[in-house]
Amino acid sequence: MLVRIVGSGLIGTSIGLASRGQGFDVEMVDSEPARSRLAQDLVGGHRTGPADIVVLALPSSKLSLVLSDEIALNPKAVFMDIGSTKTNPQREVEKFGEFKTQFCGTHPMAGRESGGPESARADLFEGRPWILCPSQATSPSTVDVVERFVRSLGSIAMTMSGSDHDAAVALVSHLPQIVASLLAAQLSGSPEERLALAGQGLRDTTRIAHSDPRLWREIISMNKAEILPLLVSLQGQLGNLIENFDDADAIEEAMRKGKAGVEAIPGKHGGRARNYFYLSVVIDDKPGQLAALFNECAKAEVNVEDLTIEHSPGQFTGLISLALSEIDAEKLSEHLALNGWKVHSPRSD
Amino acid sequence: MLVRIVGSGLIGTSIGLASRGQGFDVEMVDSEPARSRLAQDLVGGHRTGPADIVVLALPSSKLSLVLSDEIALNPKAVFMDIGSTKTNPQREVEKFGEFKTQFCGTHPMAGRESGGPESARADLFEGRPWILCPSQATSPSTVDVVERFVRSLGSIAMTMSGSDHDAAVALVSHLPQIVASLLAAQLSGSPEERLALAGQGLRDTTRIAHSDPRLWREIISMNKAEILPLLVSLQGQLGNLIENFDDADAIEEAMRKGKAGVEAIPGKHGGRARNYFYLSVVIDDKPGQLAALFNECAKAEVNVEDLTIEHSPGQFTGLISLALSEIDAEKLSEHLALNGWKVHSPRSD
Repeated sequence: MLVRIVGSGLIGTSIGLASRGQGFDVEMVDSEPARSRLAQDLVGGHRTGPADIVVLALPSSKLSLVLSDEIALNPKAVFMDIGSTKTNPQREVEKFGEFKTQFCGTHPMAGRESGGPESARADLFEGRPWILCPSQATSPSTVDVVERFVRSLGSIAMTMSGSDHDAAVALVSHLPQIVASLLAAQLSGSPEERLALAGQGLRDTTRIAHSDPRLWREIISMNKAEILPLLVSLQGQLGNLIENFDDADAIEEAMRKGKAGVEAIPGKHGGRARNYFYLSVVIDDKPGQLAALFNECAKAEVNVEDLTIEHSPGQFTGLISLALSEIDAEKLSEHLALNGWKVHSPRSD
Repeated sequence: MLVRIVGSGLIGTSIGLASRGQGFDVEMVDSEPARSRLAQDLVGGHRTGPADIVVLALPSSKLSLVLSDEIALNPKAVFMDIGSTKTNPQREVEKFGEFKTQFCGTHPMAGRESGGPESARADLFEGRPWILCPSQATSPSTVDVVERFVRSLGSIAMTMSGSDHDAAVALVSHLPQIVASLLAAQLSGSPEERLALAGQGLRDTTRIAHSDPRLWREIISMNKAEILPLLVSLQGQLGNLIENFDDADAIEEAMRKGKAGVEAIPGKHGGRARNYFYLSVVIDDKPGQLAALFNECAKAEVNVEDLTIEHSPGQFTGLISLALSEIDAEKLSEHLALNGWKVHSPRSD
């Protein structure tokens, strides 16, 4: 099978690497020859000729520049894109009439804060959702090829309509991005000694504001219709809080609504992760301590689902939190205590 | 030395535990006898009598209820509080005339999402900043006692004025809390299949919205004067973005301002952590793999500063990111590659 990948950025090159991992031939293409050469060198397995799948791995605003040439080059291939919004690309595609049966819009829910082919990873899609948004015109065989392809790259294929997709990412991705940027913008020009008090809360709430402004200019512009009502709703809530800021009940109510909202997210405070138990272990800050700890985990035959090391300014506290199933947490807690570790009793989150 | 701790919640009991770690005697007090009994049992080392230090470890709004009794009980002691704002407690204290020389307002920058004496930890303050806000009336010997005390509990003592403190925490703690809550509130009532697309970005930006609404009602109410102008500034920026949402340049500009703001925070994107290098290692999802990895770290004699495990819905990817110094990252990268590990080349963040 030959996969032609048009666009050799982070996502395109990662698709190339993952495809090679499956033994597919890959042709990397880019409007900048230096980038496609680097990407092709990284990926290997170069072959030209008629492609089975053409992946349009470029910003959605660039689709119109390449579509007619790409269709002419591979008139029989299955086509997919990878853009962060789905309604606009679909509109571009439908300009080409019957071609729309061969096209399936997709969006891999994977990325990194750094971009470019240098940052690409074969495992970028491993275990991540990859959304398929076939239109009513997309043929079942096209959907089938695309679904099998993204699954072969390690992702979890999910199907929804383009408009559902755009509404969903507006809420879970684009709105948080804008809010993080607006919040972080308030920090500029603040005295350094104030920012020195920043803790994990500020770091977490603003981390994604570090992403590429040009990339986000494009993503947000493409999904304005879905994002704007969310911003207006947020504006209403913020205005309401400001107006009632002398009323402690209004403040508490805003906090309660936030708590209910965060509990609606599957994962950490819901869904799969709800059943984790957390074990805190204090270790010395010297090489070998983590290894010794994980040796104990192996001896106790438990599976560590996640862990964090607590940060401290100026020193490393050596406080490790291990996330485990309830049974494993109890087993490990007992095992560690018996072996002289400073372990604190398991707690659910 | 006898430390009397008035308030047996998370902070008070943790101060008790840490004080016992230094060999001090500790008397735990609470308006709920069951709580002070539990706290005293956890802490041990009970002694009554004249206290050397009285720690007022209760919400600032409760200070007025205990101050006159506590002063009468220990008229010679050094007093400190631990409230999240400093201007209001100082005002309470100054009602007691000359007593103000014996009082130093403080704020340990440490906490946990869970509260109560059960959650207390002796190492809660280890390596954390502990802000001292002496007033002009606080005597030098009082400041000296408090500074030595909080240092002995493992914290890093920092001194600033109460008003500087309140302005700083409004910016780095209270504003992010409110923004996270307002953002998370937008999620309530959304279809589950939309929230299922939530990634790390949404989780990070909303995590602190899970904190106790009653606690935050109090903290925010106590610092309204400092927070309100920040909320109004945010409101202005949000309104401006909404008004110009059809202008892609305005969107990019908002993103740029956010990026500049996040770069102003010391730590992850500045300060100490700037020098970390990150090594990505793909491991199998089975017990023993983490131990094996950290055994290699020990063999290579490198010190792991931090690590993360990447989450995936429905499966555990086994992608580990290790943070190390540049030298250690290169050493470990070479060592792991030689020993057959799937390691990706080090990158700085």
